[in-house]
Amino acid sequence: MSHVVEDRLTTDAGLRARAKKVIPGGLYGHQNVASLPRGYPQFMSRGLGSHVWDVDGNEYIDLMCSYGPVLLGHRHARVDEAAARQAAEGDCQNGPSPRIVELAEAMTATVEHADWAIFSKNGTDATTQCVTIARAATGKRKILVAAGAYHGAAPWCTPGPRGVVAEDRAHLIEFRFNDLASVEAAMSGAGDDVAGIVVSPIRHDMGIDLELPDPAFAAGLRGLCDRAGAALILDDVRCGLRLHHGSSWEPLGVAPDLSAWSKAIANGYALGAVLGRESLADAARSIYTTGSFWFAAVSMAASLATLEVLAAEDTVARTIETGTMLRRGLAEQASVRGIEVCLSGPVQMPFMSFAGDDDFSRANVFARSAILGGVYLHPRHNWFVSGAMDEADVEQVLGVTDNAFDEVARAG
Amino acid sequence: MSHVVEDRLTTDAGLRARAKKVIPGGLYGHQNVASLPRGYPQFMSRGLGSHVWDVDGNEYIDLMCSYGPVLLGHRHARVDEAAARQAAEGDCQNGPSPRIVELAEAMTATVEHADWAIFSKNGTDATTQCVTIARAATGKRKILVAAGAYHGAAPWCTPGPRGVVAEDRAHLIEFRFNDLASVEAAMSGAGDDVAGIVVSPIRHDMGIDLELPDPAFAAGLRGLCDRAGAALILDDVRCGLRLHHGSSWEPLGVAPDLSAWSKAIANGYALGAVLGRESLADAARSIYTTGSFWFAAVSMAASLATLEVLAAEDTVARTIETGTMLRRGLAEQASVRGIEVCLSGPVQMPFMSFAGDDDFSRANVFARSAILGGVYLHPRHNWFVSGAMDEADVEQVLGVTDNAFDEVARAG
Repeated sequence: MSHVVEDRLTTDAGLRARAKKVIPGGLYGHQNVASLPRGYPQFMSRGLGSHVWDVDGNEYIDLMCSYGPVLLGHRHARVDEAAARQAAEGDCQNGPSPRIVELAEAMTATVEHADWAIFSKNGTDATTQCVTIARAATGKRKILVAAGAYHGAAPWCTPGPRGVVAEDRAHLIEFRFNDLASVEAAMSGAGDDVAGIVVSPIRHDMGIDLELPDPAFAAGLRGLCDRAGAALILDDVRCGLRLHHGSSWEPLGVAPDLSAWSKAIANGYALGAVLGRESLADAARSIYTTGSFWFAAVSMAASLATLEVLAAEDTVARTIETGTMLRRGLAEQASVRGIEVCLSGPVQMPFMSFAGDDDFSRANVFARSAILGGVYLHPRHNWFVSGAMDEADVEQVLGVTDNAFDEVARAG
Repeated sequence: MSHVVEDRLTTDAGLRARAKKVIPGGLYGHQNVASLPRGYPQFMSRGLGSHVWDVDGNEYIDLMCSYGPVLLGHRHARVDEAAARQAAEGDCQNGPSPRIVELAEAMTATVEHADWAIFSKNGTDATTQCVTIARAATGKRKILVAAGAYHGAAPWCTPGPRGVVAEDRAHLIEFRFNDLASVEAAMSGAGDDVAGIVVSPIRHDMGIDLELPDPAFAAGLRGLCDRAGAALILDDVRCGLRLHHGSSWEPLGVAPDLSAWSKAIANGYALGAVLGRESLADAARSIYTTGSFWFAAVSMAASLATLEVLAAEDTVARTIETGTMLRRGLAEQASVRGIEVCLSGPVQMPFMSFAGDDDFSRANVFARSAILGGVYLHPRHNWFVSGAMDEADVEQVLGVTDNAFDEVARAG
């Protein structure tokens, strides 16, 4: 374990050594830091607002927001108070609490295309339910997905090939994001057997620049679905509530038939949701989908509070402001050094890549400098700006990135 | 909605009417009371120990334990305090907290066959991971499952046919629980392509009498897996920690290669787990499996406290005591009236059926009388006895069931 031991991460190193004995590889999934530059802590201790602390007490300004769930900031008082109030009554019971009705009412009132809601625990639960509902509604089988897109970790969608069988993806047909002709070709290939199209509001494939949707592409998908009688499924798991207070394609005027939500909708409490239009309610009712904790009340109370704070504080506008300040600062810092970077994506879900950095070596130098400087960001995954981040935080981040760009310049 | 309105359920009726407008069918999944006798509340307000209250303030002694998750009783002080302490630090963060290491250590120390652990949110997550790991380990595809068994609600295992495609189950081969010859036949049919056998520790299919495992059947599965190089997967989601403090087949001396856990392991906090033996650690590491909330610390802190209480209070022995008292009382009450019932399953996970009651009409009369009398049980699903239930509770339950048997006798 010596290669990860640093003086500042001694508690972390001890935990990593213990973890290797009882967790395969030391950790599974997207929070495994094995492929991140040296200097990243694996184990976190606490968070508050825009700041997080690792188990060795090192403090960071947080630009990952737990990979998306933390929207308003860590341990947001109003959300946590609502959760604690509910926990004092009941959480996982023999039936749902009134919170499920209130939350379904709140979400269908907030999200334009939505007439109904069902709730679960994972984003993968929600995307899988969307596919199942689309197939139940249409009696058809083919699902169109963008090549390289992430829609969860179930066998039908996991990006890892191990342990899944060819049949898990038998009815998936790929298209290219923002390429309507490729969707039309996929449609033709599917004949009369298209159940739905799954698409994320922006292209956020791992390790590549983010891509905003061409409005004509979004509208084109809607038209193709209408003509084929297929369901347009918006996977809003990562973007939902960050880009808009409703569905992320509302600003484009494109309404999906189904949308999948999770991550930010309860500010870190475990919750997934599918929202759908009335015409798919019978199909949604017809499928068998459930989970032991899907009716638990605490995460729903947290989600209700999250929606209230989001509206009251206009978090989207606020994160656009701080995100814009961050983007401008980063662009300026790169520019004055003659370092070519691409800053992509919505400013509140930013990604930065270095030109020609195919092996992420410059991204890794930058990220390592940032983490050692007290800014938690990721070299290959988009970042997230929370509502708790203020101008002073951004200035502090930019102080750290200024030095990180110097290190990139020195590394050549 | 008039058919569900009763004077004692007026708040519930109002919520049902609102739910119908924003949730398909008013509710999805296993907590939907639409098919239960009139008198069941849909919405619950709170729980404490062995008692629960619906939204109209009606109080019940709880024999469903939230369909399994509540093991020690509702809002168990020590568990909830551990959860609150962790919540005050952090829950869903950029990495796991030390609790994940402590919990993996605790579970592998408690469960004999386990050398490692991975955690998730749903029982379905855990059973699906087991299947994926078995396939990754063996490079084979066929999965043997007992006909009628419930292993979750993902496309490969959901009991509902709507919205799933034939390919989702392309490599499932069925056998009959407790019928080793049927497993051998399934093995033969699979040729050299068997990845694993999934089996629950007891037969707990919906609506039929529970069946304990024949020790020779359990040992036979182990032998068949050994000879085929396949993984024996124990689905301990429903039974885990209720029958034994380790895996449910430890008393039989049969060790699975993988076991799936959820429900009771955190006394109601959302958590799933896969435990496995060392030989499958590489396969577990090789699959891509993750979720936004899978590293969250609060449910793990709750699980650690649950394991401590379980050991300190010997909850299994305690629930066997109260469960035995309940079973004897029910048997006596039926017997004195000449009503033929079958009391099946472990006493702490009991099920009662009436002879020849194919349409559940007598079970429904009994259940309706119980719910109106203040005992929450289910006419077609096994019940659960929690560690919070005491002798006074059982006596109170038997007072109610005495009357319920009278009603069954009167109904003829």
